[in-house]
Amino acid sequence: MTDPLVIFTPSGKRGHVAPGTTVLAAARQLGVDLDSVCGGRGICSKCQVEPAFGAFPKHGVTVTEEALSPRNAVEDRYDRIRGLAPARRLGCQALILADAVLDVPPESQVHKQVVRKRAEARPVVMDPATRLHYVEVAPPDMHEPSGDLQRLERALAEQWGIPNAKGDLRTLQMAQPALRKGDWKVTCAVYGDGPEPRILQVWPGFYGGPIYGLAIDVGSTTIAGHLCDLATGDVIASTGLMNPQIRFGEDLMSRVSYAMLNPGGAAQMTAAVRQALNALVAQAAAEARIDPALIFEAVIVGNPVMHHLVLGIDPVELGQAPFALATADALHLWAEEIELRLHPDARIYILPCIAGHVGADAAAVALSESPQLNDELTLVVDVGTNAEILLGNRSRVLACSSPTGPAFEGAQISSGQRAAPGAIERVEIDPVTKAPRFRVIGVNAWSDEAAFPPDTRVTGICGSGIIEAVAELRLAGLLDASGLLGSAEQTGTDRMVPQGRTHAYRLRGDILVTQGDVRAIQLAKSALYAGARLLMDAFGTDTVDRIVLAGAFGAHISPRHAMVLGMIPDCDLAKVSSAGNAAGTGARIALLNVAARRDVETLVHRIHKVETAIEPRFQEHFVAANAIPHASDGFPHLDPLPEVTFNTEGGRRRRRG
Amino acid sequence: MTDPLVIFTPSGKRGHVAPGTTVLAAARQLGVDLDSVCGGRGICSKCQVEPAFGAFPKHGVTVTEEALSPRNAVEDRYDRIRGLAPARRLGCQALILADAVLDVPPESQVHKQVVRKRAEARPVVMDPATRLHYVEVAPPDMHEPSGDLQRLERALAEQWGIPNAKGDLRTLQMAQPALRKGDWKVTCAVYGDGPEPRILQVWPGFYGGPIYGLAIDVGSTTIAGHLCDLATGDVIASTGLMNPQIRFGEDLMSRVSYAMLNPGGAAQMTAAVRQALNALVAQAAAEARIDPALIFEAVIVGNPVMHHLVLGIDPVELGQAPFALATADALHLWAEEIELRLHPDARIYILPCIAGHVGADAAAVALSESPQLNDELTLVVDVGTNAEILLGNRSRVLACSSPTGPAFEGAQISSGQRAAPGAIERVEIDPVTKAPRFRVIGVNAWSDEAAFPPDTRVTGICGSGIIEAVAELRLAGLLDASGLLGSAEQTGTDRMVPQGRTHAYRLRGDILVTQGDVRAIQLAKSALYAGARLLMDAFGTDTVDRIVLAGAFGAHISPRHAMVLGMIPDCDLAKVSSAGNAAGTGARIALLNVAARRDVETLVHRIHKVETAIEPRFQEHFVAANAIPHASDGFPHLDPLPEVTFNTEGGRRRRRG
Repeated sequence: MTDPLVIFTPSGKRGHVAPGTTVLAAARQLGVDLDSVCGGRGICSKCQVEPAFGAFPKHGVTVTEEALSPRNAVEDRYDRIRGLAPARRLGCQALILADAVLDVPPESQVHKQVVRKRAEARPVVMDPATRLHYVEVAPPDMHEPSGDLQRLERALAEQWGIPNAKGDLRTLQMAQPALRKGDWKVTCAVYGDGPEPRILQVWPGFYGGPIYGLAIDVGSTTIAGHLCDLATGDVIASTGLMNPQIRFGEDLMSRVSYAMLNPGGAAQMTAAVRQALNALVAQAAAEARIDPALIFEAVIVGNPVMHHLVLGIDPVELGQAPFALATADALHLWAEEIELRLHPDARIYILPCIAGHVGADAAAVALSESPQLNDELTLVVDVGTNAEILLGNRSRVLACSSPTGPAFEGAQISSGQRAAPGAIERVEIDPVTKAPRFRVIGVNAWSDEAAFPPDTRVTGICGSGIIEAVAELRLAGLLDASGLLGSAEQTGTDRMVPQGRTHAYRLRGDILVTQGDVRAIQLAKSALYAGARLLMDAFGTDTVDRIVLAGAFGAHISPRHAMVLGMIPDCDLAKVSSAGNAAGTGARIALLNVAARRDVETLVHRIHKVETAIEPRFQEHFVAANAIPHASDGFPHLDPLPEVTFNTEGGRRRRRG
Repeated sequence: MTDPLVIFTPSGKRGHVAPGTTVLAAARQLGVDLDSVCGGRGICSKCQVEPAFGAFPKHGVTVTEEALSPRNAVEDRYDRIRGLAPARRLGCQALILADAVLDVPPESQVHKQVVRKRAEARPVVMDPATRLHYVEVAPPDMHEPSGDLQRLERALAEQWGIPNAKGDLRTLQMAQPALRKGDWKVTCAVYGDGPEPRILQVWPGFYGGPIYGLAIDVGSTTIAGHLCDLATGDVIASTGLMNPQIRFGEDLMSRVSYAMLNPGGAAQMTAAVRQALNALVAQAAAEARIDPALIFEAVIVGNPVMHHLVLGIDPVELGQAPFALATADALHLWAEEIELRLHPDARIYILPCIAGHVGADAAAVALSESPQLNDELTLVVDVGTNAEILLGNRSRVLACSSPTGPAFEGAQISSGQRAAPGAIERVEIDPVTKAPRFRVIGVNAWSDEAAFPPDTRVTGICGSGIIEAVAELRLAGLLDASGLLGSAEQTGTDRMVPQGRTHAYRLRGDILVTQGDVRAIQLAKSALYAGARLLMDAFGTDTVDRIVLAGAFGAHISPRHAMVLGMIPDCDLAKVSSAGNAAGTGARIALLNVAARRDVETLVHRIHKVETAIEPRFQEHFVAANAIPHASDGFPHLDPLPEVTFNTEGGRRRRRG
């Protein structure tokens, strides 16, 4: 009689095992991904499987109820105390007696896949640096003296195959009481990313979780955090706050100037951002109602200036050529070293930087969007005060940054404001009546719908609103290709109001889109476009297959309007997507999957950096990109636009008949 | 014509090199130990050699003045500024043109030997964990962006063969300004003991030293420190202070009890000892007139209780069977982790422990005395409140500890006191007149010499004094083998004064040696002897070849008196020596030679531990050792002792005719 055949689904892994083998042992023998924290002692229930019965012609087996041993006392007890679904078995208790087909549900997989919303996004497989391991430790023996920690380390090596785990000093201080309280059974949190695994915490007895990690994106304007469960990968709180460094300067260069001109200025900004990081931790922990001491790890990304200031490095070198980074490599730190209050022994991983203008945030975007895994030539644009731009496919990846300025964030716009309740975020202009309709942040209706409250307070226009407004003005024939707004006479609508020698469009009340606003958007979009073109030149291409708009702000940009403006190169609109906060997502990937850290460390060395500040073609592209393009300007995917040309004298004439 | 033959002395290494090779390059080719901090740039002068001229029949060469290129401008400049002896050349400047014989003076050797006073001691070869390296770093290049730290790391790899050096966060903060101030030439302090070398400091330009390390022995009673120059190995300050934990208990067990009985008691003792360690640092730095921030490393040893308390670990488990250590392994810490204020990124190395009663101090003694390197069977006794005992030779090494109590340190003695000015430290009793003479700490004459100031304040007897006094009483026939003091009548001298039913010897004024004092010393010496005997039993021997008395106190014990008392087993007195503070010396060896750390880590695993607390034979030996032995009791090396026997009734009779 041959040994029973066991088939695991969904992996399809199969093999014969000796009768009486536990399901967990069989899974290990066959390399099946079946979780366990307690190491097969019927405590953690992480190894649940769901047996299937009947004939499986595809697998060539017929499975009867006798395939597994009956539910035993451990499973009954577990069911009584915590509940065990009738179809489920504990893999460490059920014995394989005959041919079996066993399904491993997602929650029983160690390397379970974390669901990401976008189909084209890089999948995330759980493999965090910090894991829980239950061990049974040999008690001390006077005749064979050894340290309690050494016996704990040996248990980790023997029971979990983790050699050379070392305890931090605090672990050492807590290990003896925990071992005795747990009667020589303890659970360890082991951090595995580094030259030697470190034991960060010892709990008496079995501790099945939760443990947490925090992914942080430190932007010039906002700091965003995702608090994640390190077992499931679930985001249990997403929170953000303003970067308090804004008081030292709105954009990066003004902060670098502050550091250069004020002794101790860099240290002040470091203190401010670290204080904000601690506030972020407290806010995320409060939102998720968890103890911040259960946060064992954080991953931090940010542009080079933020990166340096978080680390307490004076960013002055980043303000002048040759834009030398203090360090480009990924960093492993104790949270304590940057005064971050998580678990007392928590570790920090900081993604590598790409260049002096292309930081760990761009590396995180590269990790999240992974253009290097795609055949399609992908352009990734992370829109912010500084835009990070990536262009690449399987063959190579290029990167640059472009100083777009703060117009896209609503600054330098006459009625501009940050994206906050009351701000106009979407705009449509009727091409016939020239009347606007808009949406306001915090209100779930368009301004011309019945559900729009008449007393809505409209306070200004945010970045996405001004982009749509300018594009809609162009589509409605109120703005010409050179960026001039027409007069009331030229356009035939009294929505156009004179402002000195120029004209403005009255959006609502005293909220206008002025000629100055259009010029500010033109400058910003030209910088963005010029950066993208520079990379396309370096790549030797005139077209891209796919465009990803990233950044918290990028998520709100309408691709169609961005293309009408010529912010981005021509592309099939169906291939233009928004990735949300891709830098934050990249940080989250590095938090949940330790191999992704190695990937991004390798990737940044493969990325070819193009320095816009010294590339003469950047200036050429910038000037050439000032106009709002036609379909005939190399934008075949653009709808035909009204052929209008205005001049500042107010007369109207048609361009090209 | 063949290439010049070059012979280096004292190593005798020889070989042919291309004409025009620098002496430094030739030394590296031939594997000769020639120092350099600046990497051959004529800055550091560490590579000085002394050429020899004339006929060398032994080497088979004749060397002329033309062997080396003439002194060059770099050497002339160095001579002008810092001085260069006429016979000396800078190895990085002098070119080998013909056959040459070159002596490498000790100060030019990297691995120079540190002189130790005792011939039998383990030699110490300089090979510290922290070294200085001068590097020339590539300036940043916008077209090949990389972090300044990465280029510094690359320079260390390429110019010094140190791969994977990483900067601490503080190094990162200081690297950019240092690189620019030094015009891309900097000197790094690199700590090389650990999974990856760490850059602890970056100086602009060339920094040739000094850098320092501190070896610390934390004893129950005193804390001793040796401040060492990490380039030369010289001890530039030796200092000590009382362990302030004494207020929580005189001996180890009373401190453990304090921790058990008082919540927060262990933390109080940790705070006290850490404060003392910082006072020690300040004291040593002040004595040597150096900046404590130039101390880059400390090595700490101590018994298990001190070890745990320094680390902030509750020592309660060490107070009860099975005497479980929290950790036995050597530890690598940041000085900051134990709140020690040295260089901000200084590292701490803590020697491994051997067992719950045999700590890192015993491991340090084992390293210093290295019985495992000897053919002779060596007994090492570190005398203190707790005695650590090692017995071994090349074949194996055994260890135990024995609770001798504080009598050897002057406690529990009627006129006992610590070794301090005013304490009687040496005693002789005239066998005929029974009159004493003695020496007092702080006075350079015996009490019966003319130079002894008549107004000398004599305050008590210290440990070595009481041992000599009791032994001299025995030699003078005033004490019998069982430890009874005779009466004035029995001994014929009115130096013996009655005290209740017993008698005491009047040493000076009201300073007496009482029957109680003799009993206390008997208990202590019995414990010491029983420990040694237990190890001899385990080794299967009745004799030892060599005895080393260690410990600050051990240094002051007269070997002859110790043997008269039966503190130590019988041995040729010429083979009994004192090693001084061997634990402190072991710490210093580990500080100066990183390979010695690996040696002691291996050695502690080879040492077989004998637990006196549970070994029934210990009790037997203890009881048997109570008497003061005769030559016929297995002490053939003892002088014949007076054959007297007293009884408490006061009558006198001779034993064995």
